[in-house]
Amino acid sequence: MDKVKLRKKILLGSICTIMAGQAQAGSEVETLIKMLHTNGTVDDAQFGRLMDEIRVGAVKVTTEKKQLQAKLDKATNVTIKVDKGGVSVASSDGEFAIKIGGRVQVDSAWYNADGAGMGNGTEVRRARLYMQGKMFNDWGYKLQYDFIGNGRSGIKDAFIAYNGFKDIQLKLGNFKDPFMLQDQTSSKYVTFTERSLMDAFSAGRHIGAMASTAHKHWTVAAGYFGDAVNTSSANNKDDGWGVAGRATYVPINKKTHIIHLGVAADYRKVGGNENLRFKQQAETHIAGVNIVDTNTILNADNYLKLGAEVAAVEGPFSVQSEYVWTTVERNIGSDVDFNGWYAQASYFLTGESRHYKKGHFVSVTPNSIVGREGIGAWQLATRYSMVDLNNANIQGGKAESVTLGVNWLPTATLRFSGNYVKVLNVNKGVTNGQEPSLFQLRGQWAF
Amino acid sequence: MDKVKLRKKILLGSICTIMAGQAQAGSEVETLIKMLHTNGTVDDAQFGRLMDEIRVGAVKVTTEKKQLQAKLDKATNVTIKVDKGGVSVASSDGEFAIKIGGRVQVDSAWYNADGAGMGNGTEVRRARLYMQGKMFNDWGYKLQYDFIGNGRSGIKDAFIAYNGFKDIQLKLGNFKDPFMLQDQTSSKYVTFTERSLMDAFSAGRHIGAMASTAHKHWTVAAGYFGDAVNTSSANNKDDGWGVAGRATYVPINKKTHIIHLGVAADYRKVGGNENLRFKQQAETHIAGVNIVDTNTILNADNYLKLGAEVAAVEGPFSVQSEYVWTTVERNIGSDVDFNGWYAQASYFLTGESRHYKKGHFVSVTPNSIVGREGIGAWQLATRYSMVDLNNANIQGGKAESVTLGVNWLPTATLRFSGNYVKVLNVNKGVTNGQEPSLFQLRGQWAF
Amino acid sequence: MDKVKLRKKILLGSICTIMAGQAQAGSEVETLIKMLHTNGTVDDAQFGRLMDEIRVGAVKVTTEKKQLQAKLDKATNVTIKVDKGGVSVASSDGEFAIKIGGRVQVDSAWYNADGAGMGNGTEVRRARLYMQGKMFNDWGYKLQYDFIGNGRSGIKDAFIAYNGFKDIQLKLGNFKDPFMLQDQTSSKYVTFTERSLMDAFSAGRHIGAMASTAHKHWTVAAGYFGDAVNTSSANNKDDGWGVAGRATYVPINKKTHIIHLGVAADYRKVGGNENLRFKQQAETHIAGVNIVDTNTILNADNYLKLGAEVAAVEGPFSVQSEYVWTTVERNIGSDVDFNGWYAQASYFLTGESRHYKKGHFVSVTPNSIVGREGIGAWQLATRYSMVDLNNANIQGGKAESVTLGVNWLPTATLRFSGNYVKVLNVNKGVTNGQEPSLFQLRGQWAF
Repeated sequence: MDKVKLRKKILLGSICTIMAGQAQAGSEVETLIKMLHTNGTVDDAQFGRLMDEIRVGAVKVTTEKKQLQAKLDKATNVTIKVDKGGVSVASSDGEFAIKIGGRVQVDSAWYNADGAGMGNGTEVRRARLYMQGKMFNDWGYKLQYDFIGNGRSGIKDAFIAYNGFKDIQLKLGNFKDPFMLQDQTSSKYVTFTERSLMDAFSAGRHIGAMASTAHKHWTVAAGYFGDAVNTSSANNKDDGWGVAGRATYVPINKKTHIIHLGVAADYRKVGGNENLRFKQQAETHIAGVNIVDTNTILNADNYLKLGAEVAAVEGPFSVQSEYVWTTVERNIGSDVDFNGWYAQASYFLTGESRHYKKGHFVSVTPNSIVGREGIGAWQLATRYSMVDLNNANIQGGKAESVTLGVNWLPTATLRFSGNYVKVLNVNKGVTNGQEPSLFQLRGQWAF
Repeated sequence: MDKVKLRKKILLGSICTIMAGQAQAGSEVETLIKMLHTNGTVDDAQFGRLMDEIRVGAVKVTTEKKQLQAKLDKATNVTIKVDKGGVSVASSDGEFAIKIGGRVQVDSAWYNADGAGMGNGTEVRRARLYMQGKMFNDWGYKLQYDFIGNGRSGIKDAFIAYNGFKDIQLKLGNFKDPFMLQDQTSSKYVTFTERSLMDAFSAGRHIGAMASTAHKHWTVAAGYFGDAVNTSSANNKDDGWGVAGRATYVPINKKTHIIHLGVAADYRKVGGNENLRFKQQAETHIAGVNIVDTNTILNADNYLKLGAEVAAVEGPFSVQSEYVWTTVERNIGSDVDFNGWYAQASYFLTGESRHYKKGHFVSVTPNSIVGREGIGAWQLATRYSMVDLNNANIQGGKAESVTLGVNWLPTATLRFSGNYVKVLNVNKGVTNGQEPSLFQLRGQWAF
Repeated sequence: MDKVKLRKKILLGSICTIMAGQAQAGSEVETLIKMLHTNGTVDDAQFGRLMDEIRVGAVKVTTEKKQLQAKLDKATNVTIKVDKGGVSVASSDGEFAIKIGGRVQVDSAWYNADGAGMGNGTEVRRARLYMQGKMFNDWGYKLQYDFIGNGRSGIKDAFIAYNGFKDIQLKLGNFKDPFMLQDQTSSKYVTFTERSLMDAFSAGRHIGAMASTAHKHWTVAAGYFGDAVNTSSANNKDDGWGVAGRATYVPINKKTHIIHLGVAADYRKVGGNENLRFKQQAETHIAGVNIVDTNTILNADNYLKLGAEVAAVEGPFSVQSEYVWTTVERNIGSDVDFNGWYAQASYFLTGESRHYKKGHFVSVTPNSIVGREGIGAWQLATRYSMVDLNNANIQGGKAESVTLGVNWLPTATLRFSGNYVKVLNVNKGVTNGQEPSLFQLRGQWAF
């Protein structure tokens, strides 16, 4: 009898194991029925009927489970997120993804600069939408547009990316040349409302092809670029072209402790329909007045820009500095050289750290969120910057400026900024001898 | 025995309660097993084995339920809607939401206005997309763009909103000044294809900050505004600025029975680069001919507009009227005053009511839908409107018009409109003495 | 006893059937309990208690199932797809759907055309976003915008569609006139980077109303059109208008075996503010140089275009040819006639077939995908095309060209193309006697 029991037990065990995958109606029922059958409480006919019912029930449960599973699979074939702002959808197999996002920056500025032609005013500084995604594992794409000025600013990122190589990303289309830390860092995330005076040497975006690699302690990017997205090649005049490269070394790259070093070079042949001109506003945009301006540099054949970058983060404290030297070769006349630099320091009163990723700074998440009982992140910052566009017969002007800024990030997707800018030592150029000051406010949503 | 049974029963009850949260395999199985154990049909060893199996089964069921729950939670972490047109996604915790929508209005117009320079034609009147959302409970955002005329119309709403205060909403960015019922009501939902002649005094959108509160029986909104989104502050000339406020009182606010009263004021200092000019087409847009037009009012320093509104809904019937008085203060020359008003009546043949919310009219949902065996909503409407831009040495013209309109809303997201407009009593201005008439058709999708 | 058993069995069967819809706890438990009750192992009181528990358990399970079903229904109320590129959401009831998609084409061109004024360059050829959907079963809508040139290209599709009639689709808004196979085929899917020289006669998009029907072996479309989306009707001059129709016959329409024949006509009255002009670049776009160009044809009253189409697909091989004849009636001066044609052949090295649907060619899905271990689709193609704009006193020029092309589609959503174009026999016009050649590369994502 024990042997039989044992055999039955083993058998039952197997059946249970099989059933376990199918029926929630516990195996104990079957065990009980077999026990009752064995001890004669349930007769053979009854036993058969009960076992039939168990089998029918198991099939039913299996079918229901399959249907449930199918419905669940359908319901979870994509993962949708709205909690970073915008909306992102990713397929569960990881092959496809799409994100729709954007930014709006609303500015207001007051100028103390009577002779400089700067009028107080308001503007929408940036109003962008983008669609960005991943296709068939290895491919990426993006289209981003800035709506300000009736589309004057126009197409920003518009590219195809290939990520199928280990460590190397290829990009084809319109995107930023790899040059300058303050330009590689999105306008959503730069510390002040406007980039430093040295942005006169911004490389901007061009249509081109770039290869890049990003590692924890270093990045390298190099590309060949045609002309900007709206440049004409009419009148038998070839577009300009250029090559640009940037390398960064990050000996320390921890979450709140970063040391970043970088060098970059940008060579460009000036296009036949292009007017080479370096100019910059006084770290503001509303007034539309350039405080330094070379105007068109006649007979410019090509130019070379060299840049050096250094930045550090230590907890809530951060410093950053860059220097750029530019030389323009002219078909008639001597070469002209310009340069500029800035240094800035910033501190989060609320303890956050600037967030760094793949060679540039990215968004900061406040330790506490306004809307979730918090106060957001508060940051103080100051910057000195200088640009010198005086050389040879070009008198674009030289200017320095000191900026004080405060940023309030109620959430990771919002920022309110106030910047006070004092321009100093303007030498030549349109605002020669003047030292305008200004105050600027910005409200921003971005994601 | 009864005592034991009772005790067991109590015990069983507790176990059942515990198990109930875990196992679908009914508690009756456990009860039965215990009964059979008690009456000796099942021996102690068998009982132990059965209880073990129940425990194992319960754990398995609990695990499966947890997995199922996790999958379900993932699948329902957002709520997605497409049945209002466009697409909206909201997080289940209510903290985040996004809506992507838009509108297209396609118009065609025929003019009987030979001397007035109006040519028959077609146009896309509005072609807008917007992205709008909610972030971290308390924050809202919107970006809306009108693509017509190669972006000529440009950025519409572009703002940040804060809803964290009880009853008070703050808005920062580009949006409509709080002025005039016909302007507060979206162009998607105004009764006629174009707003009345009095829209010459439209306050439009400016970059600013506004506080508002909306209650069932009253609303108040007041804001400080800088200049329009594409206004320049160059040449040392400050942008214009203004303050505007609007208050409504709604003594009766039921679904199909509404009485609305409103007053509003809009004061603006004219910007240095701005040309103050009031003008209006003949309740049409295709021809591009202004039937009244002050042209630039020289030396304008500031202007004040005052408006009064009244509207009522009684079932399918509705009336609405507004009056605006405007005075312009000039640095040289006397003040000039203009005014205008309109009154309109409308009736839904199919029984719907105009839908009202927070101080303005919103979309109407037809009682029956074309595409779901219905005929949509049919509305008849008529309007008289007048604008007088003649005053002092300004002869912008005075004009009246009578409009007959029919609207067909096959669904809440679609509208087809036909408007006949007869202009009367034109006095001075570019179309002096003429009385053009026109017929205009529109097809619209909007959500 | 057997009778009783039978009765019970029948009864149990019924109960089981009832329970089956409710309880997963198998009916075998109930059967067993009844058996044990019948044979006296379980007494009446116990039986009652057990049956109570079964009932309670069944209610609990039913409730849980309902909750689960409700959650599942919520989770599956929409179907979301990201695996075609972009994102599409459809309601499970089939009443609503929305798709957000777009395209970016990045071009680079090198010209061997010194005298023709063509400069090498790069450009973003197209950068479009669209939102398209279905509402309340019978209604469709679309809004599509091209961002290139700061919105210069502007609004593309912007329409309402009605699909409530059997076999007939109505469209109202801005969309392509039904004319020419190479124009009906989207720029995402045409075989070469630019359409043939004959695209000088492209009908383009106008604001209008169209009815169409599409069957397996034939299609017919006819519409009445106003003017293009940005045409003015100012200065008392009516917009132009036109009627256009196209019919196709497809005697063979299998997946890889297609014979397509088509005819089309496009009559247009020239608008008062319109300058009728036929012109075409050398199957390129970057240089902006028209190789044939009538300039404004003075006193043009109306024109009629007639087109004939033929195309065939046989496995990976395809041929296609079109001819268009155009006559312009002038108020002063004789009629002038122009014409053009092209013939092209293409072959997929990787075995795919051109994909055809409802009178035009659509996207090709590669047999193997780059990103899924495949190599994509590779296609070779060649084309001869001719356009003749010389007639009467109009000397717009005549030109021929031969094009060689290769397309690589790593995925269905990506395409890289290289085209070599040799222009031949240019007779009169701006490039009289010259035979420029060019090489053009394109990278494209589109969905």
